[in-house]
Amino acid sequence: MPVLTEPVALEEPVTPATRRARVALLGFGQVGAAVAARAAAPPVNTRLQIAGALVRDPARRSPPGVPLVTDVSALWDPAPDAVIEVLGGLEPARTCVLGALERGIPVVTANKSLIAHHGDELLAASRRNGVALRYEASVVAGVPFLGTLARRPLARDVSQVTGILNGTSNFVLTRVSRNHEDIPTALDEARRLGFAEADATKDLDGTDAAEKLSVLIRLLGHRFVHPSVIARTGIGCLQPADLQQASEFGGVIKPVATADWSAGPVTSFVGPAFLPLTHPLASLEGVTNAVCLSRPGHAHVVFSGPGAGPHVTAATVLDDVLELLGEDGGRTGWSGLAPRASIGAPSESAWFVRLDLGAGAPDQRDVADLLGSFGVWIARTASPGGIHHPLTRWILTHPVAPARLSAALEALALSCGCRACSLPILEDSNA
Amino acid sequence: MPVLTEPVALEEPVTPATRRARVALLGFGQVGAAVAARAAAPPVNTRLQIAGALVRDPARRSPPGVPLVTDVSALWDPAPDAVIEVLGGLEPARTCVLGALERGIPVVTANKSLIAHHGDELLAASRRNGVALRYEASVVAGVPFLGTLARRPLARDVSQVTGILNGTSNFVLTRVSRNHEDIPTALDEARRLGFAEADATKDLDGTDAAEKLSVLIRLLGHRFVHPSVIARTGIGCLQPADLQQASEFGGVIKPVATADWSAGPVTSFVGPAFLPLTHPLASLEGVTNAVCLSRPGHAHVVFSGPGAGPHVTAATVLDDVLELLGEDGGRTGWSGLAPRASIGAPSESAWFVRLDLGAGAPDQRDVADLLGSFGVWIARTASPGGIHHPLTRWILTHPVAPARLSAALEALALSCGCRACSLPILEDSNA
Repeated sequence: MPVLTEPVALEEPVTPATRRARVALLGFGQVGAAVAARAAAPPVNTRLQIAGALVRDPARRSPPGVPLVTDVSALWDPAPDAVIEVLGGLEPARTCVLGALERGIPVVTANKSLIAHHGDELLAASRRNGVALRYEASVVAGVPFLGTLARRPLARDVSQVTGILNGTSNFVLTRVSRNHEDIPTALDEARRLGFAEADATKDLDGTDAAEKLSVLIRLLGHRFVHPSVIARTGIGCLQPADLQQASEFGGVIKPVATADWSAGPVTSFVGPAFLPLTHPLASLEGVTNAVCLSRPGHAHVVFSGPGAGPHVTAATVLDDVLELLGEDGGRTGWSGLAPRASIGAPSESAWFVRLDLGAGAPDQRDVADLLGSFGVWIARTASPGGIHHPLTRWILTHPVAPARLSAALEALALSCGCRACSLPILEDSNA
Repeated sequence: MPVLTEPVALEEPVTPATRRARVALLGFGQVGAAVAARAAAPPVNTRLQIAGALVRDPARRSPPGVPLVTDVSALWDPAPDAVIEVLGGLEPARTCVLGALERGIPVVTANKSLIAHHGDELLAASRRNGVALRYEASVVAGVPFLGTLARRPLARDVSQVTGILNGTSNFVLTRVSRNHEDIPTALDEARRLGFAEADATKDLDGTDAAEKLSVLIRLLGHRFVHPSVIARTGIGCLQPADLQQASEFGGVIKPVATADWSAGPVTSFVGPAFLPLTHPLASLEGVTNAVCLSRPGHAHVVFSGPGAGPHVTAATVLDDVLELLGEDGGRTGWSGLAPRASIGAPSESAWFVRLDLGAGAPDQRDVADLLGSFGVWIARTASPGGIHHPLTRWILTHPVAPARLSAALEALALSCGCRACSLPILEDSNA
C-alpha cells in the first residue's frame, strides 16, 4: 500500500458566523434530556438554546439552563424558532403540536403514534400555516430516509415495504435463536441492557411496529391505513425450538412488518415471519432496525441501523431542526474548500493470506518461525491439499501492520520462492 | 388475520397544477436515453421537457422530441431550468458543468470521476453563483443518502466509512464464491447480463471504487483525498479456492472500499477483504452496493441497493432535478389528505407451521391428507422427536391463502386436538 503524507493546506478558511436558534421541548424524559445535552455542542455552526421544556410534574428539578414549565402556553411567548415534541402518546402531544403549528412555529417530532393516528390532521395544519412538520425519528430513529423519500418522488415510487421496525422484539428473537433461551429470559436481558421498557407489551405484540408501518404506508403508498387494521401477531407464540428448526430449514424467524399495494388494495402484516437466508433482512440482528423498499422487478433498497435509544433519537431530531432552520444552506454539505487530507499509515489488521509454496517448501513450523521473526503470528491455518492445491496453504494472522506483513512475505519469497496473496480482515467493530 | 375492506374516501382532492420545466442533457448514452424516457412520465406533477442533448457524433439519429446538438453553447439560450450531466469522464464534462453554473443554471451529475477530481472547484462555482450542484447518483446510484447526509450534520458525524461501491466486482466475486467459477468466466457472465462493460478494467482494479470513496471522504470527513492516493488492490489476485477457504474460516471475501479518520489522518483501502459473517456488508451479494457508516462505540448505519444501471441512475438523477426545482415543496411528501386505503385480502404465501400433536395423534400421512383436502400442500417436514419435543412436527407448506391454512389447521385441531403456530414465509422476490 502506498503511504503518502501530504501537508494540510486549507485553501479557503471556513469561518462562518455562529448562528443561534431557540428551541422549545415538549417533554423532558430520556430523549428530551439527550436533546438538551447534544444541542449544547452540535458539530455545526448553529447554536441551539433550549428556551424551555414542558413537563407534567411541577416539582421536578430543573437541569441547568433548561427552564421547566407545566403550561404549554408559557413556551409560545416569545415564540421559539422550533418546537421538539418528545412527549410520546397521543395527548397532550397532538394539542400542543397543533398549537405550535397554528402559531407558525415549525415542529419536529419523534412520535410514531402521533403521526400514525393524526398525521393527516397535523400535516394539513403544517401546510395551512406554511411551517414545517418533520418526523424523521418516528421510524428507524437512527437512519435518515423518511425526509429523503418525501422529497424524492421516483425513489418513493415503490409498492412493497418490509421492515424490522421494533428493536426489542428483534433483540429478543436474536437471543432466542443464538442462545436457545426462552423469550422471558431474553426479554430480561433486553431490559438489563436498556433495550426494553418495564412494560414491553406494545413492542412484543406488534402495536409499535404497526404504527410505524402505518406511517410508511402513508408516505410511500399515499393511503391511510389505521394501525388497528393491520393484521398483527405477537412473538409470544414462538418457542425456542421454532427458531432452531427455521435454521435447519435454511432460514431465520424475524419480527417483520410488511405491506404491499402493488395490486391496488393494501395487504399488510406485522409479526414473526420466516425469511430465507437470501432475504435482505435475514442477517439483521440484535436491536438493528431496517426498511426494505421494492416494487416488482426492481432491486431492493435497504436502510438499516439503530431504531431507538435516547442519543440516537436526539441526534435525528436535532438534524430535523437544523435542516428546517436551513443550516448548511440545504444544498451540498461541502462548505468551503476542503483541506488536503493528512494520510495516515495503513492501519493494523488481521490478514487472510494464501501462500503458494514452491517445490522444496519449508514445513509449516519453519514458515511460522520465519513469519514470527517479523512479528506476524498465525491465528489459524488450513492446508487442504488435494490434486488442485498440493502446495497451497491459507493462514489467518493476528493483527499486524501491513508493512510488517509485506516484509515477512518478501522474506518468505526469497527463502523458498513462495508467492502470497493477502487480504485485510475487516472486523465488525460493533459485533 | 382480520380482513377489512374500507371505502376509498378521498377527503381532499389532490389536483395540483401540472408544472413544466426544461432540462438539457450533457450526453445521450444509455443513461441519457433512460433519463429522457423516464422524464416523459414521472409520478409527479412536474413535466420535464428535454430541451436538447449534447452529443459527440453529429450524424447520430435524433430520438423523437430530443434535439441533439454538438456545441454546448446551443443549449444555453434560452437557458434551461436545469442541466443533467451524463457524459462521464473529466472533459468536456468539467468545462460544460462550469459553463452551466457560471450562467446560473443548476446542474445534476451522475459522474463520480468529475466530483472526485473537481468537486471543490465545481462546488465553489455552485456557491459563487448561488445555484445547486447535485451528485446523488455518483455513489450507490440507486440509493439516496448523499444529499441527506449533506443536509444533516449529526447524521454525517462519522469517522469510518466502509462500502461495497462497485457492482461488477461484487457480482464477479459472488459468482466465484457460489459457483466456484474462475474470475474470467464470472466476468463473461456479468457482461452477458449487462453488469460489466467490455473493458471492465476500472471496475476490477479498484479505480471506480476509489473515486467513489474519495467523494465519501470529502463529504463525511471534510477532507480531500485524491483517488490516486488511496491504496488499491484489484480482485485479479484471487483464486476460486480463496473464496472457498474464506467460507471455511467463517467469513466471505468482498470487494470493499474503506476509510477511517477517527484518529485524525485518513487511512483508506480499496480491494478485496475478508469479512466475518457478522459484518454488516458480508451478506450483500450480486450487483448490490452499500455504504456502512460508523464511529467508534456507535451502531452502524447502512444504505444498500443497486449501484448502477441506466434506469436506476436515471431515476436518481431525475429525483435530484425534481428536488432542486422544489417539487413537493421540499417538505413532507404528504400532499393533500390521503384516501383511506382499500384493504386487500391477506396475500397467499408459503408457511412455516409448528404442529403440537396431542396424544393419539394421526400419523404423518393422515395429517398430510387432511391438510391436502383443504388445498394445503406440504413442501418439507421435520419431526426431530427427542425428549423435549416428542409430539412436535414442523412443516413448510407450498403457497396458500391464509384463510385456507386457518381452515385446515382448525380441522386438524378438531380431529386430534393438535395446536398449531404458523408464520408466513417472506420470499426474497428478487433473489
